[in-house]
Amino acid sequence: MIGIIMGSISDLKVMQEAADICKEFGIAYEIDIVSAHRTPLKMVEYANSARDRGIKVIIAGAGGAAHLPGMVASVTTLPVIGVPVKSSNSIDGWDSVLSILQMPSGVPVATVALNGAKNAGILAVQMIGIEDKDVADKLQVYKKQLQEKVDDMVQELKNKS
Amino acid sequence: MIGIIMGSISDLKVMQEAADICKEFGIAYEIDIVSAHRTPLKMVEYANSARDRGIKVIIAGAGGAAHLPGMVASVTTLPVIGVPVKSSNSIDGWDSVLSILQMPSGVPVATVALNGAKNAGILAVQMIGIEDKDVADKLQVYKKQLQEKVDDMVQELKNKS
Amino acid sequence: MIGIIMGSISDLKVMQEAADICKEFGIAYEIDIVSAHRTPLKMVEYANSARDRGIKVIIAGAGGAAHLPGMVASVTTLPVIGVPVKSSNSIDGWDSVLSILQMPSGVPVATVALNGAKNAGILAVQMIGIEDKDVADKLQVYKKQLQEKVDDMVQELKNKS
Amino acid sequence: MIGIIMGSISDLKVMQEAADICKEFGIAYEIDIVSAHRTPLKMVEYANSARDRGIKVIIAGAGGAAHLPGMVASVTTLPVIGVPVKSSNSIDGWDSVLSILQMPSGVPVATVALNGAKNAGILAVQMIGIEDKDVADKLQVYKKQLQEKVDDMVQELKNKS
Amino acid sequence: MIGIIMGSISDLKVMQEAADICKEFGIAYEIDIVSAHRTPLKMVEYANSARDRGIKVIIAGAGGAAHLPGMVASVTTLPVIGVPVKSSNSIDGWDSVLSILQMPSGVPVATVALNGAKNAGILAVQMIGIEDKDVADKLQVYKKQLQEKVDDMVQELKNKS
Amino acid sequence: MIGIIMGSISDLKVMQEAADICKEFGIAYEIDIVSAHRTPLKMVEYANSARDRGIKVIIAGAGGAAHLPGMVASVTTLPVIGVPVKSSNSIDGWDSVLSILQMPSGVPVATVALNGAKNAGILAVQMIGIEDKDVADKLQVYKKQLQEKVDDMVQELKNKS
Amino acid sequence: MIGIIMGSISDLKVMQEAADICKEFGIAYEIDIVSAHRTPLKMVEYANSARDRGIKVIIAGAGGAAHLPGMVASVTTLPVIGVPVKSSNSIDGWDSVLSILQMPSGVPVATVALNGAKNAGILAVQMIGIEDKDVADKLQVYKKQLQEKVDDMVQELKNKS
Amino acid sequence: MIGIIMGSISDLKVMQEAADICKEFGIAYEIDIVSAHRTPLKMVEYANSARDRGIKVIIAGAGGAAHLPGMVASVTTLPVIGVPVKSSNSIDGWDSVLSILQMPSGVPVATVALNGAKNAGILAVQMIGIEDKDVADKLQVYKKQLQEKVDDMVQELKNKS
Repeated sequence: MIGIIMGSISDLKVMQEAADICKEFGIAYEIDIVSAHRTPLKMVEYANSARDRGIKVIIAGAGGAAHLPGMVASVTTLPVIGVPVKSSNSIDGWDSVLSILQMPSGVPVATVALNGAKNAGILAVQMIGIEDKDVADKLQVYKKQLQEKVDDMVQELKNKS
Repeated sequence: MIGIIMGSISDLKVMQEAADICKEFGIAYEIDIVSAHRTPLKMVEYANSARDRGIKVIIAGAGGAAHLPGMVASVTTLPVIGVPVKSSNSIDGWDSVLSILQMPSGVPVATVALNGAKNAGILAVQMIGIEDKDVADKLQVYKKQLQEKVDDMVQELKNKS
Repeated sequence: MIGIIMGSISDLKVMQEAADICKEFGIAYEIDIVSAHRTPLKMVEYANSARDRGIKVIIAGAGGAAHLPGMVASVTTLPVIGVPVKSSNSIDGWDSVLSILQMPSGVPVATVALNGAKNAGILAVQMIGIEDKDVADKLQVYKKQLQEKVDDMVQELKNKS
Repeated sequence: MIGIIMGSISDLKVMQEAADICKEFGIAYEIDIVSAHRTPLKMVEYANSARDRGIKVIIAGAGGAAHLPGMVASVTTLPVIGVPVKSSNSIDGWDSVLSILQMPSGVPVATVALNGAKNAGILAVQMIGIEDKDVADKLQVYKKQLQEKVDDMVQELKNKS
Repeated sequence: MIGIIMGSISDLKVMQEAADICKEFGIAYEIDIVSAHRTPLKMVEYANSARDRGIKVIIAGAGGAAHLPGMVASVTTLPVIGVPVKSSNSIDGWDSVLSILQMPSGVPVATVALNGAKNAGILAVQMIGIEDKDVADKLQVYKKQLQEKVDDMVQELKNKS
Repeated sequence: MIGIIMGSISDLKVMQEAADICKEFGIAYEIDIVSAHRTPLKMVEYANSARDRGIKVIIAGAGGAAHLPGMVASVTTLPVIGVPVKSSNSIDGWDSVLSILQMPSGVPVATVALNGAKNAGILAVQMIGIEDKDVADKLQVYKKQLQEKVDDMVQELKNKS
Repeated sequence: MIGIIMGSISDLKVMQEAADICKEFGIAYEIDIVSAHRTPLKMVEYANSARDRGIKVIIAGAGGAAHLPGMVASVTTLPVIGVPVKSSNSIDGWDSVLSILQMPSGVPVATVALNGAKNAGILAVQMIGIEDKDVADKLQVYKKQLQEKVDDMVQELKNKS
Repeated sequence: MIGIIMGSISDLKVMQEAADICKEFGIAYEIDIVSAHRTPLKMVEYANSARDRGIKVIIAGAGGAAHLPGMVASVTTLPVIGVPVKSSNSIDGWDSVLSILQMPSGVPVATVALNGAKNAGILAVQMIGIEDKDVADKLQVYKKQLQEKVDDMVQELKNKS
């Protein structure tokens, strides 16, 4: 199971894309609101119990001074994927990107692009796919579909000319 | 009492200046290593018990993805002053500045300049000085000394010409 | 009493949030327009007389080359909280953030996030709450409400699924 | 097995830390020079054959316009961890950070901090540890050691006072 | 012939300007979708065969972690012009600018301004014009027209006053 | 007379170049330490009395949250030239540049390059040269000398080959 | 007379404010389109003849790679005020700010804030006011009006409460 | 012939690499000091006469507010390659990068990486190689040598293990 968390329901419009990828690949997921700054104890508990509850990868999205991914990573030994969310009053997204990316030695967060929840989902699936042959095969199919979408664009381009 | 914490002993050369200000103003302080990412539970405990242990202001210094000041502020209701420390592998200090400054609504951190531990100390003293007349008077004297140092510089400048 | 000042009435839509927090916590405040660049003498006078007029903390908001918080801090020994305001023609808010944050040794400004007037209000309340047990208790309640809002969001999230 | 690649031997002083982590955790690894810009075909081949050769995670380090991690990720379905390396003539590391982080939808790279090869190693180990109980246990021990290092620092701090 | 490529049809609204310049100067061009990340093998093939297919200059546009121009330049010996495209979720365009500009020694990309496809077209024409006297003459005429447009603006300005 | 001021004697190594230009052009100048943050009243007095004391242009240098040029400009109607000084703990000079440059409507500061005190001197001389024919002639000679230095460099380059 | 120039009529909506200030202070001005990149020879001629045609200060506005102010300053010995204009496709205005501000030793440009044409006008008036007592008096009145506008704002604020 | 110019002899240590590439590929070049700001008329003349003197590509290096490449491009119809040079007092190189890159529509500069004079040389050779079969063949050999250098690094890496 993949655990998807975010600090506020306002991040859901970005983070939903991670859930959609899980669905697309047929991988179980749970989605929850866990705030590093407003529910610090729930966050510690969430991270502490994640592996035992069957979670394999945690995807955490946050904006501004985005501490959720890094703090969850400080508690769990599961891989944590961080999604910088460009919130209102953000300084162009730099704050969330740097708060998630620049973790100190010993406590990594796998950071993806600004608002890159879809890629966070795919990355989580890739981690599952290390050992799961079926998932790996689906990823190969997905990659092929990416190529086919480019073929469709080529056709669309030709029709325009 | 003022509580001074930092994530690593390598921050001490910067953070010592906060302690020096406390000494200069005759205000008790304690200094400790508390890491958001390596000792998250100690951090929660530190923040939780701070007021009861007689701490009035917490000064927290950290570099990189600097979560310590914000996480401490998420647990305590005491004012927390954050000192962005320019560590090695920092991206010019922007990471620690933005990780500390851009806190979400509800959980403020009083951020000072990059490596500005001295000012963090003075700011803590000013908070104590809100109600403590003696401390307020010392701050007035300190301000006068700042002016006198400028007078000394003016003299030095004249001697050079 | 908390003193809230800003350089222009156009900053009011941001700075009102600081006043609202004062009201919410039942703490007296006054609100005024004081411009570092257009009324420098009024600014000096404001800062000089603040403590005697019963002000305990000053919250100053400004945009662009935001000198108001730092200049007020240069005159008074009260703690000054600076709110960087993202004005039109700002360079993404970097100008006001850096003009307020990067104060020289001896003259701190407690800087909060870009447009973070609400947090400036809470920080001022926290400073009052150092000695005032009632205010400290209210802050504890406020923190609990922050957690409860997350619980509400969790419910909202469940209803969506 | 974990595959560690870099664009130039000058990146080795940074990337060696990823290899050291593999050794510390007793996980097999191979280390190679693969340049996106100077050996594009070798790169494609490397990425194409990685899974079949028993590689489970690829760690790719690069500086400047750092295309290696993203290009490898475009070919393989294995998780790819990108390490931005601060090379000479880099624009403060921003170029490598953004070239690795800001991947388009469909092709994620798990980005770690500037020069963060050690964390890349730990992240790779965490991915292995999703299914491998022994590795997960070692990660738990490692996390405890991080805490103990903080205890040592606390002792060192006390000795200094 | 000038080869114009882009990673996605969404870049066409920017890249069309390069094609328009080719038309204006009467130089043959072909336009195609080639994605570094989704069709890496097609990209290698495109770059490999370009010179033999009569292409003299390649113009490649891309956004975000923009690897297309640099990767094409790694395969071909033709001059490659890179157009940083400001895509959605870009960090203000810095990501595409730096990903294209900061190429390592040995593999240059001729980078133009953000969204500067028109200038990419003119630059390609200038390269053709090195040896082609007719094209050089047309460029001289074009330069004169730029001046005349300024004359028109001067007239427009006078009419306004 | 040209008034040259700075916030600290540590800025003198940069600001001396402005004085040297005054000497070179035979224009009287005075040099002083005036700190916006440590001697705010002296600063107001300095700015207030400047015109009556015969000062025609004020050159003000400052680093970090550099308020001196803007605050002096808020009091005087003389032109004020601001020199951003790259001090230690500066965030790469951005703080002083933006604090001086981004002044609000009504109160301009003529900003020159980072550490550009020499150019501040020349700019002040140019302002004097608007009405003073002798100074204007000297500026013409100076400009010619700039060209001659390039001629010398060309000779040096030839000698190297 | 004050000379106001810009590279394109699209800059007029910003640059008009400089002209309006000239009108307000009763100082003659001329306004023209002069492009460094499209009419380089007209630019050289403009700058060369400016002093003889009675121009005392040149205000030059430009966006993007903004060369106009600096190039005019390279030809004339008059003071040149540069206005960075935030054009479309600008990288947040940084390009025009840095292209105008960071002039090499010997050739200063008096740079004002992004889109700060109004302040460019006031700065030009201040330069005229160095020797012209009437203009200096008007500047004093203008400064007082700035203060009075703040008084009006204070009244407006009171009416709101 | 390739024309290599720079604004100051201090740029030679960077720009020499462009000349070295010309030598390596057996292509004639001339090297000169031409300053946009100190010798504007020589610059116009240089650019005006370049094509007639047999120059096919111009490589122009400059630091700070780097106007030389763009101004030369405004006069000539030859392709101009711009090399941003990181000079002292530069703001981390951003000033020269943006001053060269962000040219307006109609006047392109082919920008290479910060201090990327070697790549400027290769790019110029590639432009010559569009029509010159011999040069194109040499570029193919050069590309192969780049690959072989990677092979050497792989060997060096093996020897280290």
